[in-house]
Amino acid sequence: MARLAVDVMLKPEILDPQGQAIARKLPQMGFEGIAGVRQGKRFELVVEGPADEAAVERVRKIADTLLANPVIETYEVHVLSDN
Amino acid sequence: MARLAVDVMLKPEILDPQGQAIARKLPQMGFEGIAGVRQGKRFELVVEGPADEAAVERVRKIADTLLANPVIETYEVHVLSDN
Repeated sequence: MARLAVDVMLKPEILDPQGQAIARKLPQMGFEGIAGVRQGKRFELVVEGPADEAAVERVRKIADTLLANPVIETYEVHVLSDN
Repeated sequence: MARLAVDVMLKPEILDPQGQAIARKLPQMGFEGIAGVRQGKRFELVVEGPADEAAVERVRKIADTLLANPVIETYEVHVLSDN
């Protein structure tokens, strides 16, 4: 079994009202020095078999199809563990 | 400026209906061999100053206060870039 993560973020040119709301709130709560916040999604998948190139490719296909909207989002796939 | 990520996931003992819905859908779409899916949130913060221990500690305080619910969620902080 392998564990892989898919991190999905809005493209930089897409407005992120959730992230902006958090960034606006921070100074009111005493947190200074944060220049920006973006909010995205993270998926953790347990894949049968080893965390090899084929597993990463399979997860990329799932991300393309189901987890990310390629019009407004980008994603990265990371291997978390392999055993 | 430093970029840090906060990955927020539901604790393992907390049910994740969104992740379960994705996991159920995968075989219908031709993706076999995925044993589980968990959905969480990812935040990327731009912090003024270097990506040092103090920046990580500041982001941890923000995560504790605003980004994660410690009753049902855990989080990890990662440094993405430092320049």
